[in-house]
Amino acid sequence: MDLISLDDVNRAADVIEGVAVRTPLLPARWAQERGGDATGDGGLWLKPESLQPIGAFKIRGAYHAIASLPAGRRAAGVIAHSSGNHAQAVAYAARAFSVPCVVVMPNVSAPTKIAATEALGARVVLVEPDQREIVTSELAEAEGYAIIPPYDHPDVIAGQGTVGLEIVADLPIVDVVLVPVGGGGLASGVATAVKALRPSTAVIGVEPELAADAQESLREGRLISWSAERTYRTAADGLRTPTSELTLAHLAARLDGIITVSEDEILDTVGQLARSARLVVEPSGAVSVAGYLHHRSELPPGLTVAVISGGNIDPALLARLVTPAA
Amino acid sequence: MDLISLDDVNRAADVIEGVAVRTPLLPARWAQERGGDATGDGGLWLKPESLQPIGAFKIRGAYHAIASLPAGRRAAGVIAHSSGNHAQAVAYAARAFSVPCVVVMPNVSAPTKIAATEALGARVVLVEPDQREIVTSELAEAEGYAIIPPYDHPDVIAGQGTVGLEIVADLPIVDVVLVPVGGGGLASGVATAVKALRPSTAVIGVEPELAADAQESLREGRLISWSAERTYRTAADGLRTPTSELTLAHLAARLDGIITVSEDEILDTVGQLARSARLVVEPSGAVSVAGYLHHRSELPPGLTVAVISGGNIDPALLARLVTPAA
Repeated sequence: MDLISLDDVNRAADVIEGVAVRTPLLPARWAQERGGDATGDGGLWLKPESLQPIGAFKIRGAYHAIASLPAGRRAAGVIAHSSGNHAQAVAYAARAFSVPCVVVMPNVSAPTKIAATEALGARVVLVEPDQREIVTSELAEAEGYAIIPPYDHPDVIAGQGTVGLEIVADLPIVDVVLVPVGGGGLASGVATAVKALRPSTAVIGVEPELAADAQESLREGRLISWSAERTYRTAADGLRTPTSELTLAHLAARLDGIITVSEDEILDTVGQLARSARLVVEPSGAVSVAGYLHHRSELPPGLTVAVISGGNIDPALLARLVTPAA
Repeated sequence: MDLISLDDVNRAADVIEGVAVRTPLLPARWAQERGGDATGDGGLWLKPESLQPIGAFKIRGAYHAIASLPAGRRAAGVIAHSSGNHAQAVAYAARAFSVPCVVVMPNVSAPTKIAATEALGARVVLVEPDQREIVTSELAEAEGYAIIPPYDHPDVIAGQGTVGLEIVADLPIVDVVLVPVGGGGLASGVATAVKALRPSTAVIGVEPELAADAQESLREGRLISWSAERTYRTAADGLRTPTSELTLAHLAARLDGIITVSEDEILDTVGQLARSARLVVEPSGAVSVAGYLHHRSELPPGLTVAVISGGNIDPALLARLVTPAA
């Protein structure tokens, strides 16, 4: 299977410049101290993709994928199915190109998510949850819309990889990069960029224990999907999806390892990030930092960057988590 | 009175590079829509100084002031009195130089603030609130410590002014800059940099109605301090302090105007920023955005940047504000 290259990521970086925010690396000394290592070797930096316009890294891949369409194809419009951050990413990017956008969402989606997607100018089509893919395909065929997948596409992976370019540019001596793994697009792109630029840096994926299908797939050497009934239990709703053959091939070739974190660790980290880093982070976005705070012994030593993938959390959950446990 | 110049701010920028985070400008289209102007003229960007290591812009001025001390004087140590963000800024900067640091705090300070300052390596001296200045002076004299004031010093103002340099560098066509006014150091520095680089840009100060001493001082043409009994009522605790003659002179010469916001507007904006910008912001830091959301008719039109000065909010208050009012 063809994997994307550093050149692909570099080209994506040129395309998304000025659309995606160039997020900074934020030093997080509080995390180092809390992790029990105040000796000064190592240290943690945060890459807060929660600060992107739609609150997640997804804007990078979606914009790059739409930009990479032939102009005529793009003008006909784009379509995606998503109940999460990908929906808003595609809507935001389509608006930037002034092309029509349809987002197919399950009819059980939160009204706030539907409204947010519509506010970005997309037409939302609500369907039974198990009808998402078929309705998307039918609409794409009937109307000539280009389907923008959330992770299973080289252009999407290359766009997400720009996160890795920026990490190495800002901290050239980085030793470890921690990245959340859901569908695997972000981890595939980041690993591609980081390992090409600095092979000695370890790129480690982080999954919820309750959605550790990528870890199992890598161990077994083949794509293993966990059922929705099984992964639904994790609060990290952005990480419930399985990898694809394409992303798994990238992860198998380029990831140095994968660890898992518990639900308690994820939720504790959401609160910690609000209090200590002044960042609003969704559970999926907090898994990388949870790995640093709670699983140091499983990680290589040294200067560590944790990618915070997104910040779209239910306000009521944030309110509950932000006050420290008694 | 001598005012600082753009050259002073440029020199400060060289000094603080790599210590202060180069915060990005975050597009905030949600604010434009909420402000009733979805027509596409104008728009808001956020400058989130809440993402600095100690959660506030104060690191810039404190580090620059300490760096500007003669080496021998600096080696003897530094001292500051503060119960807020300046305490942690001085402690953080002193640690970066490996010099002794004493922070004089009122004995009514929140234990979390005392602990946070000590965690940065400072020695905290607790005193009766009205003894802060005298104890600071006595300790400085007895021990040879250099006093680092929170705003009433050219080096501090020049350090804060680097926020303005970065705004113009990242958005060269900015029309309006909104900046919180407490002691006036941040507003003085930002106005100095922005007006020198782009005279057509309007720099507007924002104060709580309950601590509008700078607005009154500018109107009356002389320094007017509001009593602590009066300013204590605002939740924006970082903006309760009066300006100094030095900062007021900068504001009078370089600010284009000053507006005020109500307590309800401030608290509403804290919640809005958590939900829509995924930023944890303290009330003092939210006043600039509150001005944009609630007082558009009092502001010049055009591309607007709001400086978010800090993010050190009581977690219980954040928990209360993050869920939208029913």
